[in-house]
Amino acid sequence: MNAGIRHLVSIDDLSLPEILELFQHAKRFAQDMRAHSQVARGLISASIFYEASTRTRLSFESAMLRLGGGVLTAADMRLSSASKGESLADTVRVVSSSYADILVLRHASEGAARLATEYSNVPVINAGDGSHEHPTQTLCDLYNLWVERGRIEGLHVMLAGDLRYSRTIHSFVYALARFGANIVSLPTPGFELPPYVVQRLREEFGVEPMRADGEKLGDLARSCDAMYLTPQKPHQLSLFTDAKGISVEHVDAVYMTRPQTERYTSNDTLPPRPMSLTKQSLAGASLRDAVVMHPLPRRDEIPSELDEDPRAIYFKQAARGVPIRMAILALLLGRLELSAPRSAVDVRYHPVSVGENPCPNPTCISRTESRHVTARYKLASRFPVRGFCAYCSQELPARFVGCTTTGLFHERDSAAARQIRPDHLVFFRDEPQALALGFHPALRPTSPLEAASAANAGSPEASSTSA
Amino acid sequence: MNAGIRHLVSIDDLSLPEILELFQHAKRFAQDMRAHSQVARGLISASIFYEASTRTRLSFESAMLRLGGGVLTAADMRLSSASKGESLADTVRVVSSSYADILVLRHASEGAARLATEYSNVPVINAGDGSHEHPTQTLCDLYNLWVERGRIEGLHVMLAGDLRYSRTIHSFVYALARFGANIVSLPTPGFELPPYVVQRLREEFGVEPMRADGEKLGDLARSCDAMYLTPQKPHQLSLFTDAKGISVEHVDAVYMTRPQTERYTSNDTLPPRPMSLTKQSLAGASLRDAVVMHPLPRRDEIPSELDEDPRAIYFKQAARGVPIRMAILALLLGRLELSAPRSAVDVRYHPVSVGENPCPNPTCISRTESRHVTARYKLASRFPVRGFCAYCSQELPARFVGCTTTGLFHERDSAAARQIRPDHLVFFRDEPQALALGFHPALRPTSPLEAASAANAGSPEASSTSA
Amino acid sequence: MNAGIRHLVSIDDLSLPEILELFQHAKRFAQDMRAHSQVARGLISASIFYEASTRTRLSFESAMLRLGGGVLTAADMRLSSASKGESLADTVRVVSSSYADILVLRHASEGAARLATEYSNVPVINAGDGSHEHPTQTLCDLYNLWVERGRIEGLHVMLAGDLRYSRTIHSFVYALARFGANIVSLPTPGFELPPYVVQRLREEFGVEPMRADGEKLGDLARSCDAMYLTPQKPHQLSLFTDAKGISVEHVDAVYMTRPQTERYTSNDTLPPRPMSLTKQSLAGASLRDAVVMHPLPRRDEIPSELDEDPRAIYFKQAARGVPIRMAILALLLGRLELSAPRSAVDVRYHPVSVGENPCPNPTCISRTESRHVTARYKLASRFPVRGFCAYCSQELPARFVGCTTTGLFHERDSAAARQIRPDHLVFFRDEPQALALGFHPALRPTSPLEAASAANAGSPEASSTSA
Repeated sequence: MNAGIRHLVSIDDLSLPEILELFQHAKRFAQDMRAHSQVARGLISASIFYEASTRTRLSFESAMLRLGGGVLTAADMRLSSASKGESLADTVRVVSSSYADILVLRHASEGAARLATEYSNVPVINAGDGSHEHPTQTLCDLYNLWVERGRIEGLHVMLAGDLRYSRTIHSFVYALARFGANIVSLPTPGFELPPYVVQRLREEFGVEPMRADGEKLGDLARSCDAMYLTPQKPHQLSLFTDAKGISVEHVDAVYMTRPQTERYTSNDTLPPRPMSLTKQSLAGASLRDAVVMHPLPRRDEIPSELDEDPRAIYFKQAARGVPIRMAILALLLGRLELSAPRSAVDVRYHPVSVGENPCPNPTCISRTESRHVTARYKLASRFPVRGFCAYCSQELPARFVGCTTTGLFHERDSAAARQIRPDHLVFFRDEPQALALGFHPALRPTSPLEAASAANAGSPEASSTSA
Repeated sequence: MNAGIRHLVSIDDLSLPEILELFQHAKRFAQDMRAHSQVARGLISASIFYEASTRTRLSFESAMLRLGGGVLTAADMRLSSASKGESLADTVRVVSSSYADILVLRHASEGAARLATEYSNVPVINAGDGSHEHPTQTLCDLYNLWVERGRIEGLHVMLAGDLRYSRTIHSFVYALARFGANIVSLPTPGFELPPYVVQRLREEFGVEPMRADGEKLGDLARSCDAMYLTPQKPHQLSLFTDAKGISVEHVDAVYMTRPQTERYTSNDTLPPRPMSLTKQSLAGASLRDAVVMHPLPRRDEIPSELDEDPRAIYFKQAARGVPIRMAILALLLGRLELSAPRSAVDVRYHPVSVGENPCPNPTCISRTESRHVTARYKLASRFPVRGFCAYCSQELPARFVGCTTTGLFHERDSAAARQIRPDHLVFFRDEPQALALGFHPALRPTSPLEAASAANAGSPEASSTSA
Repeated sequence: MNAGIRHLVSIDDLSLPEILELFQHAKRFAQDMRAHSQVARGLISASIFYEASTRTRLSFESAMLRLGGGVLTAADMRLSSASKGESLADTVRVVSSSYADILVLRHASEGAARLATEYSNVPVINAGDGSHEHPTQTLCDLYNLWVERGRIEGLHVMLAGDLRYSRTIHSFVYALARFGANIVSLPTPGFELPPYVVQRLREEFGVEPMRADGEKLGDLARSCDAMYLTPQKPHQLSLFTDAKGISVEHVDAVYMTRPQTERYTSNDTLPPRPMSLTKQSLAGASLRDAVVMHPLPRRDEIPSELDEDPRAIYFKQAARGVPIRMAILALLLGRLELSAPRSAVDVRYHPVSVGENPCPNPTCISRTESRHVTARYKLASRFPVRGFCAYCSQELPARFVGCTTTGLFHERDSAAARQIRPDHLVFFRDEPQALALGFHPALRPTSPLEAASAANAGSPEASSTSA
């Protein structure tokens, strides 16, 4: 663990000005891909892939080679070291010791890249951790919007298809909201954006989904409920809204996704005619000028007839994955200085001090590699008290929270709960769990006055850390 | 698809003078393999292998590294992108976009490399497409003859073993005939050169197989029918021919092949003692000076006792695969200019405009990747009308051909058939198929005069495109 | 086969002064890993791995890249060429022809690297041949001792855990003895150093195991019989020895190993609580200053609580694998000259001239690749006559030995046996085998005089080659 090293685990590790500055560099690299072979001369990247993903791997390796660096490849770690029982933490420590100057990590467990940063001596790039994050894919998508449209703020981006299971889509919507872009969602029925994604959009960016008028959005909008998600203030929208919902006059980009069938459960069934983006779908009045994006690989959701349409940029989109990764590699390797300020967000992770790991996600690295992981959480909100696993970002399922100082536990939406210092906070699934760990129930206040005194009794600490 | 890019799908993509000039460069590279690391500096090759073939892959990658370039490796694509359902066409578009400056493609389907050239933004090298072509192997074989013998024209090359299933052998015999070399075939009984290979030798190069006198050809000739195939004029041969067949006085090279057991059907059985090239086999009077070649890997068809024989050059042969591939890579990457004229052969591919894909080969890329393929054919002869699949080069099984202008169909060996313009030509397996597609039978002429008028009626077009 | 090429098959291929000089260079490389990219510029290494071993492969490839060279990777040869039935010998001949300038070979069969040297045109580095040798691992271990302690001679190294099945441990103990270091063994009960290892220590280095007093060796010593193995003269030890065994006052390094469970037979069972090195184990009086080493990967034999202990150097140990391999690569590639004299040991291998391959090891390369191997042995001792397989180093199981000149066979511990010249020596499992091969029993001498004359009768040769 080396505090001075910069990693890319989540796109949130970069500030918006940094991202825009990286785009400038990516564009510079793209102008002549063969002219930058001095940048990483003498440096080595290691592709440590616990899941095969040839596309992603090759794009990183191409970027490193184009920067003049060398590449080590472990294209399927599951079959080698891991089979000898080596932990991810140990592998990372060894490979980051002298083998490589930067690690590009792909893993099936959510949070694997975060864990890797805790043990690595060199920068770690998350090249996909389960269904959690894949920040360079998101950067690439944003970079494409920026190249095609000159900006991201204020753009209208239509997302269509399976919006429920696509990791790419979730990261992308957060990033769009963060940049102040507007989202038009056109989900395959039954595959809408999940509630927790909408909740985060609401909490972090003030985004509220509104009904959108499908009239001008092409024939895809006829088969589903189009929604409009915007970080703008409501009064700015009133002009365009009526009973049919907000009218979207101009869409800048249509982002199509494939059905993530490999993640479907027995409850998920695609409609008889899966959504497919045809020339006709693009005939909607608002779509005339929209570029068509897709993270690839595609199956039938974009027929090849569209490939020659000048709006179809999905192959360009993939191509731009190399220069944007060149920029990221150069930055993390210390071969590129940005003048933009780093993110002001200072996320703090608090260790789970009592009881077992509260993360509910069975494929989270905090559960699959428990030996090297100290369970940690980050505080998402104080009222009600909500915590997320520091690794996989899933919410901890806590109806009750306790305080290690007082030994009392409280309903998570109580005033007392709110005042517990993060370092003293314990999450309990339910009352029996709290009791089993030796905590006692706090008295439930019955009036505001009692509530205040009970809160003080239950948590006598200064609330200097309240959010 | 970029018309200006030069690919290597078939050895026919190179003219004979170009091949000879490439040999000069290969020889120059071979003189000091370590002295050419500026040639491809800053460029990247991508090995996209849908079938594992370590030998071939390493020889290309070594060549690229020795030219100073970088290498991306996807050693088994079947297990990665392809498993997500991505088409070859899409993979090629992505990898050729910005990842790599040249693609080296290996695929199990015949025609895969041809298809790749239709979608690639960079040069494609065919590193083996099913049982179709493997042009750099053939170039390597020719290069070895040229290095060892100083020329190819007029050489006598003896081919022994399984001549039926070896892709390497088929490409090699065409190339030998094209260069004006003579072929002595010594097939394992039951594993003779297939009729379609002999037919092409006959049609393109005027080669007719003649019986060869086995007397001076060593003991292998005793167990099989030796044949002599030469592009020379018959009168030049009369001196050496008698009842026992033509007498081959001097063989320059013996090319031994392994039984391609993996392609055998239940009808194919090797003789109890498979053919094996021993010191004794090389004692034939004509073989005293012959070099011994083998594409490797070998099993028992060349025992190790032969390895120290100075005539055994099969390991040198493999070694020369690197410099010849360096020359090819340098050429296609635009880092080597040839002064020799390019091939005058201008092969035209005509789209199949009516009905389904007529290619009979179930493993042809035009059938396994139908989504991205427009079936095409090339006209091989006009009398009778014969067409080959543009991808896998297999002959289209057509007893009848139709004309899209007249709506009539004809026997393929009729005068009328001959005059249909390639763009209007349709191939029909049989009459029912022609009728089903809405074509009508032409009147069958009964006299030469009627024939002529019927032909004109059936195909009123100018025959400006007749071959 | 090229006699002038230098290989690294066994650590015995390097003299002690050479090893120490290599350490100096490794240290120089380690000072700035990125400053040596001119050393192997223009050269190529090929990783030919018949067994996946990502760790070892990446450390070699990193070393080569850091020296500025290129890398070819065949990470699992079993699945490719080998599946087409190609022999190791042929693969080595091809890859060493022009593809690569040095081979790094990993193989499941003991002796594979030795065989490779017989066919390679470039240097071969043994990166592990079955359970036989892995010399760069041993070099790395020694290098770590040298860096941490400044010397190797006279150090006290404690080996703990499964000392029976660990190839790493066996090579390491030989090397320690050769350098004049002292060994304290703390085996898991039932997993002691095998008798043949102790025998070699005794024969080559005069090492006799003595009981060690466990008192000051920490709690691990309580569960097992600690032994002390030293190449020192007994009189030097008398001061420290009493009834409880020799007292080890200071241990320089503890080398912990993992249970090699994959090699266990049904007779091998780990104790209910497998040996585990904890902070408490290191509390022994003699261990206060010991560094803790482990070849990695580790499982439970070193808990992660130890990772932050300053004595735990196992991750540094792995990191040092790169500079030491840089030194080896540079040496064998001819890019590093050593001033130290080469090993004076001149091991002679004698061909097995009569009968079948006497090597008893079914996984020895001399048996798995019999086609390309001439069975060979080296004479280990003359009284009794003992021979080792030249490939896997296992002792040939011979109760009798014969002489090809006299046609007689003798008990291997007879005076006559002793005098047979190695080139005439034949090993027989038992009498029936000797008789079956046409040899006759020698008369058994009954008195010293008769013995001498019988010996002369049985082997009339000059004993100029006696060891």
